[in-house]
Amino acid sequence: MVIALAVVRVDLNDCQSAPILNLLLKKKMQTTNSSTEEEEIFQVRKLEISDKKKGFVDLLQQLTLCDSISDEVFEEQFNEIAKCGDDHLICVIEDNNSGKIVGTGSVFIEKKFIRNCGKVGHIEDVVVDSSARGKQLGKKIIGFLSDHARTMGCYKVILDCSVENRPFYERCGFKQKEIQMVKYFV
Amino acid sequence: MVIALAVVRVDLNDCQSAPILNLLLKKKMQTTNSSTEEEEIFQVRKLEISDKKKGFVDLLQQLTLCDSISDEVFEEQFNEIAKCGDDHLICVIEDNNSGKIVGTGSVFIEKKFIRNCGKVGHIEDVVVDSSARGKQLGKKIIGFLSDHARTMGCYKVILDCSVENRPFYERCGFKQKEIQMVKYFV
Repeated sequence: MVIALAVVRVDLNDCQSAPILNLLLKKKMQTTNSSTEEEEIFQVRKLEISDKKKGFVDLLQQLTLCDSISDEVFEEQFNEIAKCGDDHLICVIEDNNSGKIVGTGSVFIEKKFIRNCGKVGHIEDVVVDSSARGKQLGKKIIGFLSDHARTMGCYKVILDCSVENRPFYERCGFKQKEIQMVKYFV
Repeated sequence: MVIALAVVRVDLNDCQSAPILNLLLKKKMQTTNSSTEEEEIFQVRKLEISDKKKGFVDLLQQLTLCDSISDEVFEEQFNEIAKCGDDHLICVIEDNNSGKIVGTGSVFIEKKFIRNCGKVGHIEDVVVDSSARGKQLGKKIIGFLSDHARTMGCYKVILDCSVENRPFYERCGFKQKEIQMVKYFV
């Protein structure tokens, strides 16, 4: 909106321009308020065990095959992943109005010998609830995970995606590099 | 060679066929002996700290940017990776004749909630010494890493490679699935 304001020529000494200026400033404040409001409603944070009750597993089902998981098995896997500490982070976005998990993604840090014993962040399992799309939540998740990888000392972050999702990741600052190969055991 | 033998029609009662049979059997024995010999010379095993002195880091330099690493930093990173136990395996092939490391690759196991709290093996940093190519060592490394991932309970193994290397991985039983996106921090 700041950019939009800048391209409108407004002469403050011109009485004709005053209403336009007021309108634009009002619109800007509305947008800022609305953005702040959305910021408050959709905050990214680390996954917690209690997120299972908030629809975390249901959300993953929008991504790929994901059977329902018992509380016990979920807790076991949660604790297993937690053992890696900051080397494996799963984040979520909770809709603070509905109390539902509407976005998630994960990153784990691989330690290498190449690149001066460098580290690489691998981003996986990014999904935004179909009802919450168009709010830039995907970008927010990628930003959160990338920031984490950078803070952990990674020299890059990588991820695999479909050709259809390439434009989205390009908007997040990624570039296509290689191809992904897969071998299934089951 | 067994297949080659099978398609040659040999009548044991036909004196004309006997020399052909002998020749083929001799050739088969030679091949088997040579394979066994190569098996003994080029065995895949886990990386050991002492492999640094055997050219492990020099080999990685054939793969990508890899500055020389001090013994201290190498040991530190080795121990750091070892903390993950079987969840992060680096393998090497030592040429038992020269005592040099001529091949390497790694796999780490990612724990997920999707796919029934499934696991995925990520294969990384596969390289064979330029002097040791054409001996199927790359295939041997991929087989070793894939077997490890399967044993660890992974439902699939994945890797990223250049389009030029796709045929090699197809021969190892992989299929192209997605594209790799990357964002560099440095």
